[in-house]
Parts: sequence; C-alpha cells; structure tokens
Amino acid sequence: MIQNLSFDAALDIVNLNINKIKFTQKPLSLFDPITYILSLGGKRIRPALVLLAYDMYAKDYAKAIPACLGVEIFHNFTLLHDDLMDRANVRRGKPCVHIKWNDNAAILSGDAMLIESYKEISKVDNKYLSRTLEIFSKTATEICCGQQLDMEFEQRLDVSLDEYIEMINLKTAVLMGGALEIGALLGGAEQADLDNLYQVGMNLGLAFQIMDDVLDVYGDPATFGKKIGGDILCNKKTYMLISALMDDNEKKELHYWISRREFDEQEKINVFRTIYNRLGIKEKAINDIVMYYDRAILALEKVNVSKEKKQVLYQLAESLNSRNV
Amino acid sequence: MIQNLSFDAALDIVNLNINKIKFTQKPLSLFDPITYILSLGGKRIRPALVLLAYDMYAKDYAKAIPACLGVEIFHNFTLLHDDLMDRANVRRGKPCVHIKWNDNAAILSGDAMLIESYKEISKVDNKYLSRTLEIFSKTATEICCGQQLDMEFEQRLDVSLDEYIEMINLKTAVLMGGALEIGALLGGAEQADLDNLYQVGMNLGLAFQIMDDVLDVYGDPATFGKKIGGDILCNKKTYMLISALMDDNEKKELHYWISRREFDEQEKINVFRTIYNRLGIKEKAINDIVMYYDRAILALEKVNVSKEKKQVLYQLAESLNSRNV
Repeated sequence: MIQNLSFDAALDIVNLNINKIKFTQKPLSLFDPITYILSLGGKRIRPALVLLAYDMYAKDYAKAIPACLGVEIFHNFTLLHDDLMDRANVRRGKPCVHIKWNDNAAILSGDAMLIESYKEISKVDNKYLSRTLEIFSKTATEICCGQQLDMEFEQRLDVSLDEYIEMINLKTAVLMGGALEIGALLGGAEQADLDNLYQVGMNLGLAFQIMDDVLDVYGDPATFGKKIGGDILCNKKTYMLISALMDDNEKKELHYWISRREFDEQEKINVFRTIYNRLGIKEKAINDIVMYYDRAILALEKVNVSKEKKQVLYQLAESLNSRNV
Repeated sequence: MIQNLSFDAALDIVNLNINKIKFTQKPLSLFDPITYILSLGGKRIRPALVLLAYDMYAKDYAKAIPACLGVEIFHNFTLLHDDLMDRANVRRGKPCVHIKWNDNAAILSGDAMLIESYKEISKVDNKYLSRTLEIFSKTATEICCGQQLDMEFEQRLDVSLDEYIEMINLKTAVLMGGALEIGALLGGAEQADLDNLYQVGMNLGLAFQIMDDVLDVYGDPATFGKKIGGDILCNKKTYMLISALMDDNEKKELHYWISRREFDEQEKINVFRTIYNRLGIKEKAINDIVMYYDRAILALEKVNVSKEKKQVLYQLAESLNSRNV
C-alpha cells in the first residue's frame, strides 16, 4: 500500500511547484510584482489542503497541482489587493507591492494574477472542470464579500459577533473549505464527502482566525510571529474588541482609547488586556474555538475513507488547536 | 431557411440579456458599482460579435449568451479599473465608479466583476469549456499587458509606431478577435475558421482604434460623440502624436506644447492640427486603416461559410470603415 502524504510532504510538493512558476511574457513590469509576492512565501496551507484532500482518494497527485497553484495564486492576489485597500506597508516582512512599485502596479498586476489563477484552475481534468470552476468562483466572490464587510466594519463601532463571524467566514474560512472540497472532487470523492470536507476546512478556518485574535493579546512573542498587541494598537475589529464593545460598562473607556490619536503603546495594550481579562473574553473565545474545532472533527469523522487516510487532517486540526495561548 | 441575425437584432438580444443581469448577493455595496457601470450602456459591439459569429454556424443562439455576457462584463471590468488607474472622472457622461464611490470600491467591485465574467464563461457547453477558457484567459492577460504598456507610454516621448500598434492590438483589438473566435467555437466552427475570424476581429479592432485617433482631430463634432481635440489636450500618445513626434523638425514645438501647464485649449488644438496637416499624418493613418480593413476583409473571405452568412460581418466592417472623416 502506498503511504499517504504527510502534511510536510504535501507542503514540500506545493513549494516545489510554486517555485517552478515563471512569468516570461512581456511586459515584465506587469509580471514582476506577481513573481515578487509569490516569492515571499507564507504558510501555503491552502494548496497543501487541496493536495491532502486529493491524496485521500487518488494517488497520481500531479493531477491536483494546477488546482493547488490556482488556489495559492488566488490567495496571494487577495493579499496584494487587500494590502493596497488597507494601505498596509509590510507583507511577510517585506514592502507591499504598492509600496515597492505603486498603486497602479498593484491594481493591474493583481488583476493579471487573478487571471493567472483561473488559467491554473482551467487545467484540471475536463471531467471536473465545470464543478471545480463553480466552487472556485463561488469562493472567490465570497472572499470579495468578506473584504467588503471587513472594510465597512472598520467604520463602525456596533459590529455584532454574528456579523464578525460571518465576515471571517467569508474572508478566510471558505477558501480553506473550498481547498479541501476541490482536492477531494479531483480525487473522485462522492458529494457527501465533498460537503463534509468543506465543513472541516471552513470550521478549522474559523477556529484558526479566532485563535489568531486571541494570540494577538495573549500570545507568546517568541512563537506568534507577529508583534503582540498589533490589532489593539490599530483598533482592529477582532473577536476580542467586538466582544468587549458589547459590554455597556467598558464601552466608554474603549471608545476613549479608540479615538485617541496619541498614546503610549504599552499603556493602551495593557488597558485593553485588563478589560478583556475582566470580561473573560479569552475564555469565551476559547469556548468558540473549541466549538468550531469540534464541528470540524465531527465533519471529518463522517468522511467516508479509512481512519489512516484521514490521519493527516486530524493531526493538522490538532496542531491548529494547540497553538500556545 | 432561417434568416441570419442582423447586427441590430444581435445588439437587441445582447441588450435584453445584459439588462436581465441582477446581483442580489449581499453586501449590495460590493455589487452596486457593477450594476451601475453595466447600466451605462456602451456600444456593446464585443458581445454582438460573439453572437454574430455563433449565428454563422448554429441557430440555437441561447447557447452563446453566457459567452456574450462574460465578454461584456469583462470589458466593463477593464473600463472600471482603467478609469481608476488613469484617474479619469467621466465614463459615458456619468461619474466613474471611483468618483461616485471611492478607490477601494472601484478596486474590489472590479475584482468581483472579473470573477463574474468567469462565472458566465464557465456556463458554456462543457464540450467547449476548456477551449473557451483558454481563449478568454489568453485575451484577458493580453489586455492587462496592453494597459500596462499604455501607462508606460504616457511617461515616454519616444514611443515608436510599432510599439503603439502592439499596444492597441493588446488593449483593444485582441478582444474583438477573441469575441468572434469564441462565438464561432461555440457554434461548432473548424479551427481554420476560428483563426480567420480572429484575424477579422483583430484587424477591424486596429482599424477602428486608429480611426478613433484620426476622428479626435478631424471628426465631425455632431457625429463623433466625444469632444474633438480631447486627446490633444491631455497629450495622449495617439497614432497622430506618435507619428508627428518622429519628425525632427516638429518635435521641438510639440515638446514645448506637451510640457506647458497653462494654455489656450483651441490654440493648442490648432497648433497640433497644423503640424499633423503639414506632415500628412491623416493620409498616413488612413492608409494604415485601409490596410487593416483590407486584411480583415481578406480573412473574412477565407471563412468557410456562405456569402450570405458572412454578409453581416462585411456590412459591419464597411460601416466601421466609412465613419466620417
């Protein structure tokens, strides 16, 4: 029996194939920003999910590679345009495309990148082409909806937790669901498995995003990878802040700090953390993370393949769930 | 025998179907700009070309409608993003999306629109899906290349006429070629006909764009639809200006007028027109237009269907060729 791919093996295959992508068409000035953002790396969890899902049903994984590349190019396209819209400066420790080049380069190279993602998706087995495109385009539209909501929420102080969950679902979680679904589809899985794997990815995506919000406040600086308190300093509407703003007693102090233009950074972080502690928001968030994690595991149990084949997804879920708090 | 569609009949069918498009997904704020730009109208020649080419080979034209919509949505997406990059204010007499909303709305709704165009293209008969996507994506990338070159040319005074033809070919002509090719493909045409129809569309596109450059200087204000001299006032690198800049004697005066920030508009238009007259650029342009028109007609003659079926494309070519100068 051929061994199933481990997560690390899937990542290696994905990285190898992403590194092979070359844009030689002219003008190079259009394609250089695409090569640049793809070279910055990232976790590449989405293409790995495509490959791992495929590998549960079929062995000739070369057939899954175009979908892996399509999903990862699409994800990086969203980062490129989101960074421009959010006026971010840095992506993965390097200047964003609109900083290194200019706004127009970010717009147009992003457009070209979205087209490239469809070119890769279009290479999948003709038998599955129509359904793959359907999942891919549906997910792509949802991600635009998520970004639109995210930008609108930045202008509001009354975002509800339900609205927030809907937003991160669209912006982050659906692509993890779609990645597993597309991989399984290409491997020949039945519809019931596609639905369950979509639920696995989506719920893990939700758990992952809320955990990210928790770690911004309570994470270990040594392992988190980002600066602790970054979300607090820029008033980002996270799970933590939205939950705290729902408390009538704390709302006033939070509004005061949100409106201040000049402040001591550490003081602001301490104030927010104290309020979060007082309201038990970390515990509330962990409860929700466990709920989404459990939903992912329940959906994974229903997937109709052997326990051995699902092992890698169980392990992945476990590793996401046990990030240090 | 069922009569072939006339150009006006094809336009009516296209308009009817474009007017049926409704975006009801939330948030509406993401989709409103798409509805808006599609409601502004335009010539809609590209979707009509898809339909007319299809109609030369097959009669059940409902099957060509998704491709018509995909091509027209894509074209309007390019207008939306191009207007943002070019910092234009007005499109078809109405404020551009980034003026009516803001830059971010133009970026994100444009992205969503590009995805919508692929959703329509994905609805074509599965038998032709892969090849339709190939033509569509290739053309889409080329249009991005054309816009990139166009923006780069704005910063240069040494653009050659060959470079200019290459740019308008990518930015404008290939989509007219691709529209005819996709329509014929979906109708069941042979490869030789696809190639010839692509040449018809592409060469008509080139003739049309150069004629547009001529009409900006010499057009009849009553019929041209745009303000005469608009290209001259904003130093646009047209066929006319690029040809004039190649003349060493006239270059200095042109550079002087290009660099002036304040000037009398009519005076500048008169200076440019006088130079163009002196150099015989209108005649040179008309020569090239006739050349591209002839190439289109030669390619159309090779298309392997009856003269009657091709009649509508002959007429269309004739009407483009005889716009008043």
